[in-house]
Amino acid sequence: MSTSSWSPSASISTLITTSALTKTKPSGSHETVALKLIAEAQSKGYERICMPLTTEAWRKRWTEMCLVPYDDVSSETKTFKRESRRESRLVLRDLSVESKAEAWRENPCFERDEVTITRLDEAENVTAIISEWLELDAEDDGIRYDAEIALQQELAYASYLNIQTAILPAPRNRHHVASYARTVRACLQNPFLSLAVRLPVYDTAVLDPSSPLSPSSSASLSSAPSTPRLVVSNIANVPNRTSPSPGPLEAHIDAAWETWDLIRSICDYNIRLTLALDLTPPLPNSPGVLSKWAAEAVRYIFLPASTFIANAKGYPVLPKPTQNFIRDSMTHRPNIVISGASSGLHVRGGEDAYLQYVKHLERTSTVVQAAGTVGTVEYFAQGYQDYLQAPLQPLMDNLQSITYQTFEQDPVKYRNYEEAIHKALLEWPQQDKIILCVAGAGRGPLVARSLSAVERSKRDNVHVYAIEKNPNAFVTLQNRQRSEWKDRVRLLFGDMRVIQMPEKVDILVSELLGSFGDNELSPECLDGAMRFLKPQGISIPSSYTAHLAPLSSSKLYNEARAVKDEKSLETPYVVMFQAVNLLSGDGPGLSGLCGSQVQECWEFEHPRKNSVLDARGLPPTNSHNARSANLRFYIPHAGVLHGLAGYFEAVLYGNIGLSIHPHRKDQVSKDMLSWFPLFFPFKEPLYLPGNSELQVSIWRLTNERQVWYEWHAESFLGSLPSAARVPSSGVQPLPSSLISSPTMGVPSPLIDAIDLGPRSSVIMRDIPDRPAATLVKIGHTSLHNAGGRSSWIGL
Amino acid sequence: MSTSSWSPSASISTLITTSALTKTKPSGSHETVALKLIAEAQSKGYERICMPLTTEAWRKRWTEMCLVPYDDVSSETKTFKRESRRESRLVLRDLSVESKAEAWRENPCFERDEVTITRLDEAENVTAIISEWLELDAEDDGIRYDAEIALQQELAYASYLNIQTAILPAPRNRHHVASYARTVRACLQNPFLSLAVRLPVYDTAVLDPSSPLSPSSSASLSSAPSTPRLVVSNIANVPNRTSPSPGPLEAHIDAAWETWDLIRSICDYNIRLTLALDLTPPLPNSPGVLSKWAAEAVRYIFLPASTFIANAKGYPVLPKPTQNFIRDSMTHRPNIVISGASSGLHVRGGEDAYLQYVKHLERTSTVVQAAGTVGTVEYFAQGYQDYLQAPLQPLMDNLQSITYQTFEQDPVKYRNYEEAIHKALLEWPQQDKIILCVAGAGRGPLVARSLSAVERSKRDNVHVYAIEKNPNAFVTLQNRQRSEWKDRVRLLFGDMRVIQMPEKVDILVSELLGSFGDNELSPECLDGAMRFLKPQGISIPSSYTAHLAPLSSSKLYNEARAVKDEKSLETPYVVMFQAVNLLSGDGPGLSGLCGSQVQECWEFEHPRKNSVLDARGLPPTNSHNARSANLRFYIPHAGVLHGLAGYFEAVLYGNIGLSIHPHRKDQVSKDMLSWFPLFFPFKEPLYLPGNSELQVSIWRLTNERQVWYEWHAESFLGSLPSAARVPSSGVQPLPSSLISSPTMGVPSPLIDAIDLGPRSSVIMRDIPDRPAATLVKIGHTSLHNAGGRSSWIGL
Repeated sequence: MSTSSWSPSASISTLITTSALTKTKPSGSHETVALKLIAEAQSKGYERICMPLTTEAWRKRWTEMCLVPYDDVSSETKTFKRESRRESRLVLRDLSVESKAEAWRENPCFERDEVTITRLDEAENVTAIISEWLELDAEDDGIRYDAEIALQQELAYASYLNIQTAILPAPRNRHHVASYARTVRACLQNPFLSLAVRLPVYDTAVLDPSSPLSPSSSASLSSAPSTPRLVVSNIANVPNRTSPSPGPLEAHIDAAWETWDLIRSICDYNIRLTLALDLTPPLPNSPGVLSKWAAEAVRYIFLPASTFIANAKGYPVLPKPTQNFIRDSMTHRPNIVISGASSGLHVRGGEDAYLQYVKHLERTSTVVQAAGTVGTVEYFAQGYQDYLQAPLQPLMDNLQSITYQTFEQDPVKYRNYEEAIHKALLEWPQQDKIILCVAGAGRGPLVARSLSAVERSKRDNVHVYAIEKNPNAFVTLQNRQRSEWKDRVRLLFGDMRVIQMPEKVDILVSELLGSFGDNELSPECLDGAMRFLKPQGISIPSSYTAHLAPLSSSKLYNEARAVKDEKSLETPYVVMFQAVNLLSGDGPGLSGLCGSQVQECWEFEHPRKNSVLDARGLPPTNSHNARSANLRFYIPHAGVLHGLAGYFEAVLYGNIGLSIHPHRKDQVSKDMLSWFPLFFPFKEPLYLPGNSELQVSIWRLTNERQVWYEWHAESFLGSLPSAARVPSSGVQPLPSSLISSPTMGVPSPLIDAIDLGPRSSVIMRDIPDRPAATLVKIGHTSLHNAGGRSSWIGL
Repeated sequence: MSTSSWSPSASISTLITTSALTKTKPSGSHETVALKLIAEAQSKGYERICMPLTTEAWRKRWTEMCLVPYDDVSSETKTFKRESRRESRLVLRDLSVESKAEAWRENPCFERDEVTITRLDEAENVTAIISEWLELDAEDDGIRYDAEIALQQELAYASYLNIQTAILPAPRNRHHVASYARTVRACLQNPFLSLAVRLPVYDTAVLDPSSPLSPSSSASLSSAPSTPRLVVSNIANVPNRTSPSPGPLEAHIDAAWETWDLIRSICDYNIRLTLALDLTPPLPNSPGVLSKWAAEAVRYIFLPASTFIANAKGYPVLPKPTQNFIRDSMTHRPNIVISGASSGLHVRGGEDAYLQYVKHLERTSTVVQAAGTVGTVEYFAQGYQDYLQAPLQPLMDNLQSITYQTFEQDPVKYRNYEEAIHKALLEWPQQDKIILCVAGAGRGPLVARSLSAVERSKRDNVHVYAIEKNPNAFVTLQNRQRSEWKDRVRLLFGDMRVIQMPEKVDILVSELLGSFGDNELSPECLDGAMRFLKPQGISIPSSYTAHLAPLSSSKLYNEARAVKDEKSLETPYVVMFQAVNLLSGDGPGLSGLCGSQVQECWEFEHPRKNSVLDARGLPPTNSHNARSANLRFYIPHAGVLHGLAGYFEAVLYGNIGLSIHPHRKDQVSKDMLSWFPLFFPFKEPLYLPGNSELQVSIWRLTNERQVWYEWHAESFLGSLPSAARVPSSGVQPLPSSLISSPTMGVPSPLIDAIDLGPRSSVIMRDIPDRPAATLVKIGHTSLHNAGGRSSWIGL
């Protein structure tokens, strides 16, 4: 159902080098060298082949035409006098060379020896590796200009051979990434080609050059493609100012991502632009900094044999952090490109070992396993990952039977409801008669669970009512009453907000919750039902809370933009998140005011206390159901904000609840299927630097006829004199006057009952001992869904 | 031609206070108090009246319904427990009060004594001052909710009375400005009302409370509206990290602007939202920080009598910085609101003195005077301020006679051309015959100037050709030849790029320049004309450069958005700038790499040296006319980037030139009228914090058929450990390897000849002695005009 081009099934490719193409001779049934090598790769089990399109001859001709030998030009002149290279090229050499270059620029054309393949059958299943030596981001703009012509020439040739995807040379120069990106954007105007930007996960020069892991920086031209170096101009000055300060590797990974972000932003998130992430450098053992790649279009992963280490028996395996990263990446079903497998780097296992090992990683990936296990949310959600659904509006629309059926499959939700009802019955004074009412009975699952709870409780004086306003579902209810429930249930047809009940009830059971808790108008419906709840009666659920976290996802941003509706970016969607990354981290941030990764917005309780009611027993206005929240998130790593992830948590009764809060759902209601999270999109992506803070405002608004949300975000960068850094020990509670996030310190009946592990221990620091933090506002997003026409829930 | 609602003619209002309304009795021919006060104000010369709509009675009722006495709630609970106020209100007082509040929320309605006026004639020429005590940004969301209902009620009443504009209570609480703004956005859905946000130019609490300039913070309810206080949460921590550090007042002015920026951004730059700038606080003597208001929709300026000081004779005058600010603001023709004129604060002049003084400021305003002086650009440009024009494309379109006529009015351009030609003739070897050719003669002004220069030079062996491709203009040329020039000129009809000339020429005179120099394809046209220039021949102009500066302007952003064309934000416009502010400052910035306020992008020289030419004498490709620039600007004060301002400077011959560069035009070609600057818009505004850096990339691109520009910007925030601050003395030259901005150190023949004053002394610091600067990327804009369909100049 999604149209994205970057999540086909996972596959494994091999990389054929120029050197292999040169050394091999055609033989046997294979008419050309390329056909022979391709057949060999396929017989070894590789599904696709990556190979260069051009030969050393082309590089030689282009270099002679377009470059002046470097030693002819002093480095000072070269870099800093504009137009200098262009001029000096003309000054330093024959005009005849420049004439050749002009002839080429006018009609770019390869000669036969300058390309590796010429036939359609040679190009089948081939991904083209574009000439790596093309400097699209050279300092000299003459070189950039000529590199762009050469790139367009090569892409046109790939397109002629029906090749679908080309992998571009890596960006190398932070100062000219915008020029690189502009060129890529121009190339994307060819509608038949997908382009992948090759990007080392960080600049390998960071590594000690004497380290065996550090790839040689002077790769010979005919060898396997070397891992390109990204020269990041400000890298020596990468943020290292406040605790927790990112380590140097983390900073370099952030810098590599920043380069990618600039490229895909300038290319306006074109879905034909993807990422070929080069995992040659060893990864750090801190998954936080790597999680941002989950939100990006990583379509290729480069894995040279040199990245593998030998295990105890001498077989090639990957270092632990790289293993984990590959396993996690398997959700995206990337194309894994293995190179150098035949070079004999490892003693045991032979060439086949690398491919088998990668397949083993896929099989043992948690996400792949979960998707294959009946009963998990991942299994249930197959095909729905990152797919935008409009939230249900059961108050306005009568649901279809098939919709009820889907949600009735949930094994956890109804179990917890039964437990809650059971517990409530047990705790009810023994002598009393109990009136129980299911408000919004649908096709009857909660009625059945109520009866089951009554039976288990061995209370024989429980009367059960069931109210339903959907006339179609009411037929099903009547049928079940006749065949199953008989006189143990009394059915009532009507809207709980206006229906006349024969008597007041003790226990009111409802399930009107949306992904964000109140977003299917549970508060408004239950306001109406409170008319017939006794003063000491209870509601199941007794309360629910809404939770938010800032989210990055190129995929969801593109999906929301693609919805052909002016308001597509002003509406929240129900989404099973996959290619997303939560940008927030736990921690107080520089201001000391930031809360946890996911923060609570607000709460609704039933029944309300001390409410003003009119003669009908209804609140005169809905103003008591307006809410707002002002949350402050700590953003540890640079990222792009595309929206907000919304979750809910409900207390049914006592310590029994329902939760889709990412850190608590497994403790509260593991494997519950009924709710995917909510996604509140932003119209324009907002760039957030590492170690910054994000202030999110969200409002639940209401008038006489409608309820809607509006949301907004502002970003701040903190800055603290380095001499005054606070040690990350010294964990002391914040003075309550400084707590802005309501998630801290609010007791939850669910938390009290369940050990939440380390996640729940919010780290706080003593503000008064810290030097005053400096916060500088750096950006904001637009407001969305601002009332009026874009209101989205009718009352 | 512009549709903006915020630049009507300037006017002066008076403010009628609640107290005056209470104390006055109706008398004489005036049926009501309001009518009497209004008639009095008009008789004193005020054009409009600002007055409150509600009385003390309304405040009393609203307060009793919606607020709990503050001392009932401990301050800790109040501010930090969400929903606490709402709950505590219910707990602490009678449900009957809450019932009253609910009844009001359901049907908001004033009683007669709660409003000041009731009749249409009372509301004529009245601007409503909304109840100042409404806290739209209160900490408590119950109070905010009720304040919003009260605001909507009051606006509806104003609208009922046909009032056009309402001035809103000032935002007070930085933490909840987003809530304030959301409310304003909701109110703007009433299409009949314009809203102005009252904003003190900075928080008056900054001032020493003992100072006589500091207004009393406890204004009594019936007195004139007090200057509202803006509580800026992070104000104690405002940027103070690097030199030059903004002074405390500057920081507070930036903070006030930041509040306004957030409000109008959330309101999506609605043109019915304007600013009522309160100038009660004394202004600092540093115009830089105030210039940002020039780019904003300042429609009202509040000037209480207490802001005036007494001059030597005891008459009220304004402090110098306030005088200057008001004079500069007169371009916007604001509504100046004088209050307290009758309170007798100053010994001399009486009530009339304030109004007369403001009128005196308007008369003596430089901008107003310039607009009234024949011969100035301001006079010439009347009605064209901030009006977007598509740049001319004289190569593609044949110009109309009226267009030629407009530009021929320029007294300066043709004078400088004649001087340049004259000088060139004088410097030409005496014995030689000289062939002079005007390429692109139009209706002949340069031909006439050439002949005049020849005459003055007393060279009798000069032959003059004139080429023109516009067949219509060619008729005019023939007419002038017959009537004026006779055989002193030989006319040739055709395109200079292909025309066959009877002989080669020594001096080629052309005027093909656009606002950005090369943007009307002068380089491409002159490439063609070089065919018939002798090897030692000269071109007038001999070179030209393009210049850029980052620009803020709400007005231009809205104008560009309003163009009903998908590509409206991907096209540069010719604009006479008025409501704009250049965001850049001179100075190296934190990186040490920033250039001056306006920076040079690139240069074109004619004739080109060492060029490769084909058999026809033409360059085989246009690649030599591609250009790119990567500029780094220092941003001293927070602002919003809406686009780039483009300028050109041309060297005609020797030290004679043409310039619209804002710092050099007066020295090079004062009062030249022919070119307004170019405006390159950005699709999305980019927020730039104070003391940040902006990296701008711009490309001049070309293929066989087209030339176009693309542009992009990225912002960086600098951060330097405070202990390591560099003293602002120690001015030493940058090592050349660190100079990225080409404007530095490139000798200009125009600068050599003309003393540019202090502007030209670029302040540089010695980088090696500085600690490494930390730069953090914080944002970027989208790329625009990216080739293809959006190309905009045909070759």
